[in-house]
Amino acid sequence: MKVLITGAAGFLGRRLANKLLRLGKLRNAAGVEEIMARLVLLDIVPVEGFSDPRVSVVSVDLADPQVLNRVVDAETASIFHLAAVVSSQAEADFDLGMRVNLDAARLLFETCRRLGHCPRVVFTSSVAVYGGDLPEVVQDDTALNPKSSYGIQKAIGELLLSDYSRRGFIDGRCLRLPTISVRPGKPNKAASSFASGIIREPLNNEETVCPVTADTRLWLLSPRQAVDSLVFGHELVAEAFALNRVLNLPGVSVTVGEMVETLGRISGQAAVSKIRWESDPVVQRIIGSWPGSWDMTRALALGFKGDRDFDSIVQAYIADDLNGAR
Amino acid sequence: MKVLITGAAGFLGRRLANKLLRLGKLRNAAGVEEIMARLVLLDIVPVEGFSDPRVSVVSVDLADPQVLNRVVDAETASIFHLAAVVSSQAEADFDLGMRVNLDAARLLFETCRRLGHCPRVVFTSSVAVYGGDLPEVVQDDTALNPKSSYGIQKAIGELLLSDYSRRGFIDGRCLRLPTISVRPGKPNKAASSFASGIIREPLNNEETVCPVTADTRLWLLSPRQAVDSLVFGHELVAEAFALNRVLNLPGVSVTVGEMVETLGRISGQAAVSKIRWESDPVVQRIIGSWPGSWDMTRALALGFKGDRDFDSIVQAYIADDLNGAR
Repeated sequence: MKVLITGAAGFLGRRLANKLLRLGKLRNAAGVEEIMARLVLLDIVPVEGFSDPRVSVVSVDLADPQVLNRVVDAETASIFHLAAVVSSQAEADFDLGMRVNLDAARLLFETCRRLGHCPRVVFTSSVAVYGGDLPEVVQDDTALNPKSSYGIQKAIGELLLSDYSRRGFIDGRCLRLPTISVRPGKPNKAASSFASGIIREPLNNEETVCPVTADTRLWLLSPRQAVDSLVFGHELVAEAFALNRVLNLPGVSVTVGEMVETLGRISGQAAVSKIRWESDPVVQRIIGSWPGSWDMTRALALGFKGDRDFDSIVQAYIADDLNGAR
Repeated sequence: MKVLITGAAGFLGRRLANKLLRLGKLRNAAGVEEIMARLVLLDIVPVEGFSDPRVSVVSVDLADPQVLNRVVDAETASIFHLAAVVSSQAEADFDLGMRVNLDAARLLFETCRRLGHCPRVVFTSSVAVYGGDLPEVVQDDTALNPKSSYGIQKAIGELLLSDYSRRGFIDGRCLRLPTISVRPGKPNKAASSFASGIIREPLNNEETVCPVTADTRLWLLSPRQAVDSLVFGHELVAEAFALNRVLNLPGVSVTVGEMVETLGRISGQAAVSKIRWESDPVVQRIIGSWPGSWDMTRALALGFKGDRDFDSIVQAYIADDLNGAR
């Protein structure tokens, strides 16, 4: 079987690629484990560092209507669609967000439909689909009322995935991710970039800015559990999703202040002093519109796993990305 | 000011056009009543029967990207976007539904954005955006989980309208209509066509088929109140919508059996005997996925009005469309 990852140059995409290469197989449409003979890593920027003979790298613009016809074919049994323009960037550049987050997703689903073999499609959505007046704990049946263009575009992607699945064009599974923390690498244009930065930079002895107040509540998931969940969500039979192809993944609810306390406990006050508090009203508004927690009953019943607490999230970052050194 | 109605050849569009011509004025962006100097009636089929000098008729395909640039201009202060491919047709022809219900709505909003004058846009959505496991009375914060392509496409239109409004590209108001009954004219390709047909045809001494069971519960609104609500929703200040540009309009909750009882009470058993009960699983499935009622608190608080009961809905049809004769 051939597997495609879009947005493969991102940290989740790279980590997922490595995990799939280690596993070497995935369940096919019949529910039977099959050898992954080829893994296509697609991104608009070159995906570097993969020398495995099963891997082919494609550096293209996913939103170009001609591209997907060349990349996706009847051998493409599974697609992990991770490519996205992140929240603050989609807010700053409306057209770019619409093009990548909406048009490219639709093009991908439509390409699958034309091929007619109903591939399995794992699509990532986000806390950002929620907004407005929210209950303290968001429920599975809480309405979406996104207050960012990114959230709107992801919510539309969810609806398209649901309908393309209901009609049998794709076998879609949409996993709503909590904010990912601690993301390795550099800060990005996600409004939630700080949710990794305030831990990552101090642990790497670098200065960082926290743009939100200490009482801001976040709903978090480690990259390790996120990638495990992507694979787990792929392996489930379609019937497990019943009437709803969109699933809220487990998370950990913490305030920014509690995150910083954890940092201090693990790495000392010198690390904490690397954080400069400097409020950014745009970031505060976007982040403040997201839920601080949601009900996890359905995900846990299906067998998905979250992190134990924020301590274990930080420890996972140290183990996975700092080679165990703090 | 110039006003545009899309889908103007439909029964709601025609009735709305007549009402606007009678009113002669609408509130402009500043909240001040302004003379409606021009009314553009757009539909893919010719809109006939309007001789008022303020009216111009445009017979074009709204989903053609070139069309809207010619029809909408900086003078277009208000748009009533009613054009849609109805539920059973969108289910039968996926591409047509996507093109009209999604692409044309987006093109319209985008045309407004490019012009930059933030016109008021009244957009109609539907009970069909709900589906799946629903509470007995749908609440304002109940999640959308549409089980038809029409419902998906309308839900996407709502999201786009919300974001284009939040960003100040348009001043959008989305009114979710209950199923309209009693609609005058011929049966159409809406799954809910029977909800008018089982009353209209017997009152016109014609045979009709009821494709759903007598215990099927519907949420109804008369054409008269629907048109009044479209105008009322236009006249409200944007701030009245607060955090949510989408509003559930008041309705009347009845079973199909109760509708037929009302028909018998008003027009006798001869009328009832014109109904042949012949179940259609596709229609039953689509209609059964829609809510039988929703909470009306928000709409009533804003000043919207519904019908008193199903008797008054039938009486309104007799008065408005049968010239008072039964």
